[in-house]
Amino acid sequence: MPQTSDINRQILLESRPVGAPTQANFRMVETPVPTVQAGQMLLRNRWMSLDPYMRGRMSDAKSYADPVPVGGVMTCGTVSEVVSSQLEGYAAGDLVMCFASGWQDYTLSDGSMVFRLDRNMAEPSQALGVLGMPGFTGYMGLTDIGQPKVGETVVVGAATGPVGTVVGQVAKVLGCQVVGVAGGAEKCEYAVKELGFDACIDHKDPALAEKLAAACPKGIDVYFENVGGKVFDAVMPLLNAHARVPLCGLIAQYNATSLPEGPDRLPQLMRLMLSQRIRMQGFIIFDNYGHCYPDFLKTMTPWVAEGRVRVKEDRVEGLENAPDAFIGLLEGKNFGKLVVKIAD
Amino acid sequence: MPQTSDINRQILLESRPVGAPTQANFRMVETPVPTVQAGQMLLRNRWMSLDPYMRGRMSDAKSYADPVPVGGVMTCGTVSEVVSSQLEGYAAGDLVMCFASGWQDYTLSDGSMVFRLDRNMAEPSQALGVLGMPGFTGYMGLTDIGQPKVGETVVVGAATGPVGTVVGQVAKVLGCQVVGVAGGAEKCEYAVKELGFDACIDHKDPALAEKLAAACPKGIDVYFENVGGKVFDAVMPLLNAHARVPLCGLIAQYNATSLPEGPDRLPQLMRLMLSQRIRMQGFIIFDNYGHCYPDFLKTMTPWVAEGRVRVKEDRVEGLENAPDAFIGLLEGKNFGKLVVKIAD
Repeated sequence: MPQTSDINRQILLESRPVGAPTQANFRMVETPVPTVQAGQMLLRNRWMSLDPYMRGRMSDAKSYADPVPVGGVMTCGTVSEVVSSQLEGYAAGDLVMCFASGWQDYTLSDGSMVFRLDRNMAEPSQALGVLGMPGFTGYMGLTDIGQPKVGETVVVGAATGPVGTVVGQVAKVLGCQVVGVAGGAEKCEYAVKELGFDACIDHKDPALAEKLAAACPKGIDVYFENVGGKVFDAVMPLLNAHARVPLCGLIAQYNATSLPEGPDRLPQLMRLMLSQRIRMQGFIIFDNYGHCYPDFLKTMTPWVAEGRVRVKEDRVEGLENAPDAFIGLLEGKNFGKLVVKIAD
Repeated sequence: MPQTSDINRQILLESRPVGAPTQANFRMVETPVPTVQAGQMLLRNRWMSLDPYMRGRMSDAKSYADPVPVGGVMTCGTVSEVVSSQLEGYAAGDLVMCFASGWQDYTLSDGSMVFRLDRNMAEPSQALGVLGMPGFTGYMGLTDIGQPKVGETVVVGAATGPVGTVVGQVAKVLGCQVVGVAGGAEKCEYAVKELGFDACIDHKDPALAEKLAAACPKGIDVYFENVGGKVFDAVMPLLNAHARVPLCGLIAQYNATSLPEGPDRLPQLMRLMLSQRIRMQGFIIFDNYGHCYPDFLKTMTPWVAEGRVRVKEDRVEGLENAPDAFIGLLEGKNFGKLVVKIAD
């Protein structure tokens, strides 16, 4: 069922998941295309982004952002075309990135969290990945919190995901030793051969801790945390004095319904942070760094164009396939930045 | 038994403690006063400092500093007089603070970690407290990592200890709302009435969490962590978005022989740091900030002289009483900065 000009297909949060989300937590409905009021514009969504943080929005646990209400449209970022505008500065035909969009064909926008794109951009979906929220997250977390120095060792989980690829490749540009962690031999090989990582360890390997230690003979100076769970467990004993840990995601624990069994390692982590003088900082990219986005684009756009930072997308066709693709994302099934093509 | 000119009494680490240290872990011996070689000076120790970090030096667990070897002299900072010197820049009669000294009458020094004091300083023991390592720790952790802003809420544990008093009083100078946590009604009253804290909660109160929440109606922006344990548990749910947690000590867990029972809250802490965008940083004062010590003294010395930062000392007489005093320190028995007067 393709996009049409008179129906707005929407994917709603039907119910809150307990543990891993299933198809039953989503429902697609057909609604009229909304009408533009003064101060608004209507966006026709062409590409939508699927990202791990959306698992948080499906829960009503206290978090940095309000949850999606049950019965509400799932939120996401989209690359969209302006259909009609009563908003100054935007006109029909403009291409934009909207960070406050939804899993739907059409979005009404008041211009907030909207950035204009070049209409002739070769690969508009990159605005959802390397040039969008994930790439911006990797770049700012690495450079501003991680502050890597030449020769230091940087480790990043989900190494072939849209954040990890940027973290690792930018760390190489900055002269670091880069070790990735990824799920499976194919992803690990890609990280080393295509992205230029010095090593990449399979987190499914029972010897993860030993292999990570062997790949980091001088310890770890920056661990970019976007995974959590057993990867962090393997990283902890390797953290050097004055290590920095930017923390932007914990995909391994998003589906958890209870805390793991004991012992309680919270005191152990704090002891480690004290004895090794570690700085750990959680951040939410647009909350912490929104004002830096234009500068980021100025740096990253040519790096992508020149091939210094390579990009891999995992493209899914059709809005109706978004729930399945998202469920797979949380299981690590995607390979590259997961985007859904809604329409041309 | 007082200090003499020909015997060097030393307190050695007799054995490593399991859990809380006891008298049996220490032994006093009498040795000859050492002879000065070229590039050295002999210090006669007048005041010695007792601080919680020394518990770590008694263990051989990996930490930022090497442990005291079994049979070695316990380490500490001392205020000392130069007896004789073959070290350029120091002469007999000079008064110094030596951060690399020991629980003993005489220390041979090569000048490292030594700072000159004013011979006519009214209260030389303050060089071990408000103007020494603890005061410097409180000041740098609060200002550089905590970065408190006017009107923000700052919470500090061990509020009447030498670090906590400086954290709280400096935070008041900087225009913050200051809430302390201390052990017992007497200490809490002192923090409010004498130090000017806005509130102080007794950590022995079973309703610690509720009372802390009531004292922090706008949440916590800076938690200066020098305690750990149940104080941190009460603080966690109150941490505001973008809260900062300087971490310089964990006295509540230093005597622990195993991790607490589960569940494992390590993932919970990381989730909190992410969702609230918290920055936590462990630091070891001279390792992170040694170069800032002269500037600190320029700021703090007049504040102490003017009474803007008040000082409370808990003075013990006699080197031989140091082990008992130290054991009591870990139990929270002292009230104010614990110092031992070895000799005039």
